[in-house]
Amino acid sequence: MNDLNHQTSRTATLLMHCPDQQGVVAAVSEYIRKNNGTILHLDEHVDLETKTCFMRLLWDLETFNLHADAIRKDFEDAVAKPYHMNWEINFSDEKTRMAIFVSKESHCLYDILARWQTEEFQVEIPLIISNHPNLQAIANKFGIDFYLFPIMPENKKYQETKQMELLEQHRIDFIVLARYMRILSQAFIAKYPHRIVNIHHAFMPTFPGAKPYYAAYERGVKLIGATSHFVTGNLDAGPIIEQDVVRINHADNIPDMVRKGRDLEKTVLSHTISLYLERKILVYDNRTIVFP
Amino acid sequence: MNDLNHQTSRTATLLMHCPDQQGVVAAVSEYIRKNNGTILHLDEHVDLETKTCFMRLLWDLETFNLHADAIRKDFEDAVAKPYHMNWEINFSDEKTRMAIFVSKESHCLYDILARWQTEEFQVEIPLIISNHPNLQAIANKFGIDFYLFPIMPENKKYQETKQMELLEQHRIDFIVLARYMRILSQAFIAKYPHRIVNIHHAFMPTFPGAKPYYAAYERGVKLIGATSHFVTGNLDAGPIIEQDVVRINHADNIPDMVRKGRDLEKTVLSHTISLYLERKILVYDNRTIVFP
Amino acid sequence: MNDLNHQTSRTATLLMHCPDQQGVVAAVSEYIRKNNGTILHLDEHVDLETKTCFMRLLWDLETFNLHADAIRKDFEDAVAKPYHMNWEINFSDEKTRMAIFVSKESHCLYDILARWQTEEFQVEIPLIISNHPNLQAIANKFGIDFYLFPIMPENKKYQETKQMELLEQHRIDFIVLARYMRILSQAFIAKYPHRIVNIHHAFMPTFPGAKPYYAAYERGVKLIGATSHFVTGNLDAGPIIEQDVVRINHADNIPDMVRKGRDLEKTVLSHTISLYLERKILVYDNRTIVFP
Amino acid sequence: MNDLNHQTSRTATLLMHCPDQQGVVAAVSEYIRKNNGTILHLDEHVDLETKTCFMRLLWDLETFNLHADAIRKDFEDAVAKPYHMNWEINFSDEKTRMAIFVSKESHCLYDILARWQTEEFQVEIPLIISNHPNLQAIANKFGIDFYLFPIMPENKKYQETKQMELLEQHRIDFIVLARYMRILSQAFIAKYPHRIVNIHHAFMPTFPGAKPYYAAYERGVKLIGATSHFVTGNLDAGPIIEQDVVRINHADNIPDMVRKGRDLEKTVLSHTISLYLERKILVYDNRTIVFP
Repeated sequence: MNDLNHQTSRTATLLMHCPDQQGVVAAVSEYIRKNNGTILHLDEHVDLETKTCFMRLLWDLETFNLHADAIRKDFEDAVAKPYHMNWEINFSDEKTRMAIFVSKESHCLYDILARWQTEEFQVEIPLIISNHPNLQAIANKFGIDFYLFPIMPENKKYQETKQMELLEQHRIDFIVLARYMRILSQAFIAKYPHRIVNIHHAFMPTFPGAKPYYAAYERGVKLIGATSHFVTGNLDAGPIIEQDVVRINHADNIPDMVRKGRDLEKTVLSHTISLYLERKILVYDNRTIVFP
Repeated sequence: MNDLNHQTSRTATLLMHCPDQQGVVAAVSEYIRKNNGTILHLDEHVDLETKTCFMRLLWDLETFNLHADAIRKDFEDAVAKPYHMNWEINFSDEKTRMAIFVSKESHCLYDILARWQTEEFQVEIPLIISNHPNLQAIANKFGIDFYLFPIMPENKKYQETKQMELLEQHRIDFIVLARYMRILSQAFIAKYPHRIVNIHHAFMPTFPGAKPYYAAYERGVKLIGATSHFVTGNLDAGPIIEQDVVRINHADNIPDMVRKGRDLEKTVLSHTISLYLERKILVYDNRTIVFP
Repeated sequence: MNDLNHQTSRTATLLMHCPDQQGVVAAVSEYIRKNNGTILHLDEHVDLETKTCFMRLLWDLETFNLHADAIRKDFEDAVAKPYHMNWEINFSDEKTRMAIFVSKESHCLYDILARWQTEEFQVEIPLIISNHPNLQAIANKFGIDFYLFPIMPENKKYQETKQMELLEQHRIDFIVLARYMRILSQAFIAKYPHRIVNIHHAFMPTFPGAKPYYAAYERGVKLIGATSHFVTGNLDAGPIIEQDVVRINHADNIPDMVRKGRDLEKTVLSHTISLYLERKILVYDNRTIVFP
Repeated sequence: MNDLNHQTSRTATLLMHCPDQQGVVAAVSEYIRKNNGTILHLDEHVDLETKTCFMRLLWDLETFNLHADAIRKDFEDAVAKPYHMNWEINFSDEKTRMAIFVSKESHCLYDILARWQTEEFQVEIPLIISNHPNLQAIANKFGIDFYLFPIMPENKKYQETKQMELLEQHRIDFIVLARYMRILSQAFIAKYPHRIVNIHHAFMPTFPGAKPYYAAYERGVKLIGATSHFVTGNLDAGPIIEQDVVRINHADNIPDMVRKGRDLEKTVLSHTISLYLERKILVYDNRTIVFP
């Protein structure tokens, strides 16, 4: 494949949930139509258990009557308020600004940066933050600023304050913990609700904690997993975004599991970043709706 | 799980495609709303290459103002015609009447009948047709009429005519070739357009023809596949519905591949029947759109 | 595939583990050679952690100098004793005698019986035991004796005694719990060490207990699993034999998960029976070695 | 996992096939034993169709009586010749010297270099060769020499001669075509028999040639694949080493397929390199035996 016709037109994506009621789809689609927009993709689903309506809608802005900066206010008044929607709209030409947190393991970082450099990820990466110096050289390779914040019990609060200043200064709106092995404080997490993703190297809820491969080996499981999730105040219990597994056998010792697990972790984490950037993830009631 | 709350309310499913144009979703959803219906599930997608809009919409009929027998005519005039839609609407309480064609291999047949008997498949199965007597006993086990039509070059046309009479008499509207090893005539196929599914024991388009496992062995592939497709006049080239693969290794000889393949075939075929019964398959331009 | 050359020669299979030491493979293979046998398949692996040697060896008996009934004694003296082996030898013409325990769910039972009837499973099934009458009709379809043992707290011990008598009378040496929803007593389990397999409808160790799909839904996992394991005195903690998972999405409610799970359960359980019948499973230290 | 006990002892790996005959395993294992070696892993399989014995054997050299440089000669005389074996022995401390050929696409290259830098791949990479300058910057990032050989019909022979000189000069013994889009000449291929691997971006034998994703889209397949194979004189028909597939749906256009395909290609190619470095691949009769 040489010449790919990347879709280059500007689009907007609506993510929303609201109490189930008649006319939700009609109201939203009529709003797009009367402003001269074209719906490119729409997924809507009613959960009968919770009586909630979930929707993701992608529309073309080329012919749309409203300017991007007017859309959010207008949509709120015209559609969202009457239907009690919990919603967000994002525009394809507003690039997400993403920070990556790492420790010592490089596999997830390499995979993310390779995708960023080949423009598979349409994202700004102003900085990488770490509690160890090991991956500085990789950040340098890719020309991204690297900030070292060694964290000890006695300086944790201070260092986090500095980190938050830095994130604010760079207008970061999305944080990826790419095998960052420190627990964030509640204050930090509260500043980025459903905007921090973590990769856990096990099939959650199995094997929480720091040594999942060891626990998997002890229990003799036949598949090991990786799980991405939003970070919430409840450690290891945030909403799961994506999971995958790989088969192991009796000849795989713990280092083999670690090696197989690395491939899973990077794949699951990079896929999660894709889903986030395409605005396909909606959180409801500590679970995620991941649109296809 | 003991007591499952099967969704028992009556629903209707719209499947449609039409030239891409503004207002399609608005027109359909407004039609549902003004007749007091509730949309339970909606998938819409515009293919930018062919400028075509594809949609599947499931709605609750409980509160709907129109009776089922009036809906099709009304929808045609009110919505389908103005937007040049190619469409069908099916109702959850109109059970599909399905015929199964078999030869000698029983694995697909058993899997289908077990799902039918446990009511996983909400379908009527008035008869099984075969060109060999081998599976008569299985039909008897499940109390389904079995009709034997041995087919030789000299009687093929006559036998097919008899088969078609039988199908008509039983008001069959869906035909499953569950490892039926005879080729249907063009006349037969033309009577059931996109209503006959076949399971081919290879990953199409690899290894067409009668001995795919032998060809797979010869080529030394590492995965073998199975493919379900609609039967069209173009042998082995009908629209693909579902495919899956399984890993083989050097110790697998051809009988091992046949055995592993059987599991694939029955899984892929039964899944295809599910998709058909839930009205999730739409054919366009010799390809299928399979809604999630 | 019409004419499969099923391998029909008589074979023997050795499964063994012993402390790691030099010369184990040489001793076993030399024993086969000097008795004029041909090794068809051999897998040997040393676990460096536990310093244990595991082996599975399949050899052709056609030209072997010893009669089957002499082999076990001879091998014990000549090879097993000097190397402190824990071992068993099975012969391809000694058919396993398998009992199936069921409750109300039929999917695993159908899958097993279909494979038995098409001779994919080379096994005798003298009887089916259940605590509910629901599946009696299926047993009748396949001409297998069905024994009903309703179990209440007050009669459990008595009923189990009767069951054990029946199993002994039919010389059962392998028991499959095909969604049998009762817990066996320690006395029962002790009579069939590593000869009872169960299918659990979750990815162990997640979601032990009776309602795993409900728990999976609550936690919002993206994959659901099934696990087969040997039944030991330690409930839900027996050695895992086989696991698999299937992807679910936000539109899958609990009945959907139950339906998808059924396909997993039957596939994993039937595959486990295959592995057992081919003598590919060895238990060591509450884990299984499953040879490829 | 912090402290992994990487297996650091020196090992040797035998790969061999020979006509099936009694005593092969006994001869090899007795040879290891009498020289005071310990077998760590052994896989042996007899293919009854071709009457051929295949074996991979890994043994510990720590206590072995012979020096590495004496083993090959000694084994040839003592074991290989009498049994007419086709064999090779490799030592864990002789690092493979690998050249990577690329064109414009970076995903496979990044994945390989990241694994090399984290020492997952125990391999020397003295140089990268390309027919386009695009990936020079990546080679620089990782400190590997990059040689540009633009290839036109009129200079192809000359450039290949230069390439071969360079490979010889760097004592290259393994060549990876990481999306190198030129066809090698027969003379080049003949110099590296079963030592050149290529990644093809389709499930072979489907969709040979330069535009497989376009062909896959046209045919409407539901899975796309990637295939690694040894390069032989017969274009696109060399022995297949590894294959994998990924699911696509109706909303995936060709650029989406290209993107999903990239993940497959890099995973399959990197896994293939692993298998090669661990000496798990044996070629026989245009097929590979890939040991588990």
